[in-house]
Amino acid sequence: IHEPHSSVPSSVSSLFVDAQILQKQIDELSSFSDTTAPSVTRVLYTEKDVLARRYVKNLMGLAGLSVREDAVGNIFGRWVGQEPELAAVATGSHIDAIPYSGKYDGVVGVLGAIEAINVLKRSGFKPRRSLEVILFTSEEPTRFGISCLGSRLLAGSENLVKALKTITDSQNISFLDAARSAGYAEDDLSSVFLSKGTYSAFIELHIEQGPILEEEGISIGIVTAIAAPASLKVKFEGNGGHAGAVLMPNRNDAGLAAAELALAVEKHVLESGSIDTVGTMGILELHPGAINSIPSKSHLEIDTRDINEERRNQVIEKIHQSAIRIAKTRGVKLSEFHIINQDPPASSAEEVIEAMETATRELNLTSKLMISRAYHDALFMARLSSMGMIFIPCYKGYSHKPEEFASTQDMSNGVKVLALTLAKLSLQ
Amino acid sequence: IHEPHSSVPSSVSSLFVDAQILQKQIDELSSFSDTTAPSVTRVLYTEKDVLARRYVKNLMGLAGLSVREDAVGNIFGRWVGQEPELAAVATGSHIDAIPYSGKYDGVVGVLGAIEAINVLKRSGFKPRRSLEVILFTSEEPTRFGISCLGSRLLAGSENLVKALKTITDSQNISFLDAARSAGYAEDDLSSVFLSKGTYSAFIELHIEQGPILEEEGISIGIVTAIAAPASLKVKFEGNGGHAGAVLMPNRNDAGLAAAELALAVEKHVLESGSIDTVGTMGILELHPGAINSIPSKSHLEIDTRDINEERRNQVIEKIHQSAIRIAKTRGVKLSEFHIINQDPPASSAEEVIEAMETATRELNLTSKLMISRAYHDALFMARLSSMGMIFIPCYKGYSHKPEEFASTQDMSNGVKVLALTLAKLSLQ
Ligand SMILES: [Mn+2]
Ligand SMILES: [Mn+2]
Ligand SMILES: [Mn+2]
Ligand SMILES: [Mn+2]
Repeated sequence: IHEPHSSVPSSVSSLFVDAQILQKQIDELSSFSDTTAPSVTRVLYTEKDVLARRYVKNLMGLAGLSVREDAVGNIFGRWVGQEPELAAVATGSHIDAIPYSGKYDGVVGVLGAIEAINVLKRSGFKPRRSLEVILFTSEEPTRFGISCLGSRLLAGSENLVKALKTITDSQNISFLDAARSAGYAEDDLSSVFLSKGTYSAFIELHIEQGPILEEEGISIGIVTAIAAPASLKVKFEGNGGHAGAVLMPNRNDAGLAAAELALAVEKHVLESGSIDTVGTMGILELHPGAINSIPSKSHLEIDTRDINEERRNQVIEKIHQSAIRIAKTRGVKLSEFHIINQDPPASSAEEVIEAMETATRELNLTSKLMISRAYHDALFMARLSSMGMIFIPCYKGYSHKPEEFASTQDMSNGVKVLALTLAKLSLQ
Repeated sequence: IHEPHSSVPSSVSSLFVDAQILQKQIDELSSFSDTTAPSVTRVLYTEKDVLARRYVKNLMGLAGLSVREDAVGNIFGRWVGQEPELAAVATGSHIDAIPYSGKYDGVVGVLGAIEAINVLKRSGFKPRRSLEVILFTSEEPTRFGISCLGSRLLAGSENLVKALKTITDSQNISFLDAARSAGYAEDDLSSVFLSKGTYSAFIELHIEQGPILEEEGISIGIVTAIAAPASLKVKFEGNGGHAGAVLMPNRNDAGLAAAELALAVEKHVLESGSIDTVGTMGILELHPGAINSIPSKSHLEIDTRDINEERRNQVIEKIHQSAIRIAKTRGVKLSEFHIINQDPPASSAEEVIEAMETATRELNLTSKLMISRAYHDALFMARLSSMGMIFIPCYKGYSHKPEEFASTQDMSNGVKVLALTLAKLSLQ
């Protein structure tokens, strides 16, 4: 880090993270929740989401960043560099939280990014390329069934622009009405697209959401690739009827078809033979959902992932074949088998991995190269620029539940690595 | 029917059912619904339930009945007989409708009973024993998980009085608050209890909810016994976690445990070897219910019935053993296995069967002795007095869905049989 135009921190010892402020901010943000502590529930465009966004914009302002919001509520806080015409270096994550989850997933990468900017400012650093903190809209699919909504749009998904014109949530509220109620969607949604030259690199700081770093006592995970996610929506329909009056041979129970398919998902995932293949039925809804009614409709949502795209796609094909077979055997109708998304995996850029590794070494922190099994906005930002991710340990690998936890020390380490990496990439 | 004190209709030909008015009333009542036609959703103590009750009370008044309501909203319309000190003859059913169901279940037995009174009045009949039409509160378990709430209380269930003091619905609204919002629950709930001498007989008119009468082209089913119902609530708990990050061997998925138990219910029911054994998982809820979360909790409600109580109880025991085994195998906790109710079957009284059979014969209608596989308020009224039920055909045996249908002619036949049976029993 001795580039000619550099104003890089003269010594890594000048990088001071105010870990207590960061912890306090994380605790404060968690109070914007629709369920009681320790659980956090913060769903896209709800009142709590709007209040949490205001909180983050305020912190960006206090950090001296100039704030911009786009038509779906991606929020950008920019520290203009000495050569503002160059592609910027970006970092960020999300603050939405699925029902009854925790306070670290995503949040560490947003509040941590703002603190990283503060760290660099306090050190006297002056960026060459601009640095930009991004809060991504709806990384979680909770409300509209679409994960990484904000970053998919930034990466230019025309299909998503089309889908968002008609999509509704489970309460039949349209995406556009929901966005407007939060003060967004005034413009054409394709105004959100960013061109490929906008950023030279994107780095996301995140809790591991797995047990490896904690178990091995390592401070920093340097992500080399993000596993390939796919999600499916499946519906079965039968005749339903009264639970007392319709005898067993006359039934075609959509709920039992769903139960069979859930177990088939598990079976096909295990058949892959690889520890890296996972599959989950996270949603199962029965209609009419009364104790004395045979389910006439069932609705499942299935998530399957692998670091190997082809292997994952084989699992999807097997699930499809099982759904067809179950429908036939049980005399129910497979009224929908929809692949919501089937994204390719992404690899981190070599120069970003190198910058993260160097930063970690200079800070005397232990590190490990690893795979991200969860997916992140970084997966879609990789379509726009070089990408990398920094993982920190979390308690027992827990995530998406109230017990999710990362220590102040680990967060502080992550912020330091992020700050130094941003500084390095800003000078490249 | 030539008893000495009799003012019985001199001829069955004097019994005139105004079938068009009855059909019009059924259509009107179906419009008090929280879902759009042809589906009906009318849940206990909601605004639509209150409006529907007012509609029925008005019809009772127009029929010249004196109307009384008790502390949970059972509604009684009495035609005082010539010997008012004698135990009355009662008839009735329910008007609540599970979500997305139809307009005949229960309703035929309430509006049909009022029309039966009108039939007898028009014929010039004067009852010796008083005749009473009853609208029972919450035959369906939709809101508080308790079926036949009103008739259970009439029959003197101390346990139910106790339970209703603390029970809440899924929105955390207490039974007492809900009842008060509908204008009830001003008195001690045990005020609802009736003594054994109140009625000499109870007859319920109802659609068959099975395909037999329609398939065999028979007009009237004379019920000899009501199958023994039981309902179970089961909960599993696991660690949950992120659908991408937690690898398959580290999971204990409460959703998959529920799926396995649902299939085990089906298996154990089929193992009974009897066509009369049925079992249904009508409710399955997953927590947190997000596509990218492993279910950490599942909640099932299971209904199982048989005309043989012992055989049904064996099925319950097998379901319990399976739940324990599944919890063990999957490393989840079986946090609840609760038998909500486990009622004994009831038989119709010989003298009531005889009155129904004679009435049917005199009216030149075809009839068949049969079992009620669905259960009804009559099951609990059998604890207070002699009991009988009259079934009429319904389209394909459909019930608890919008396609539920009974023809005007079949309803008219049922009302005539009910009227004549009431007349006969009133004179005994
Ligand atoms: Mn998440
Ligand atoms: Mn996340
Ligand atoms: Mn019913
Ligand atoms: Mn009924």
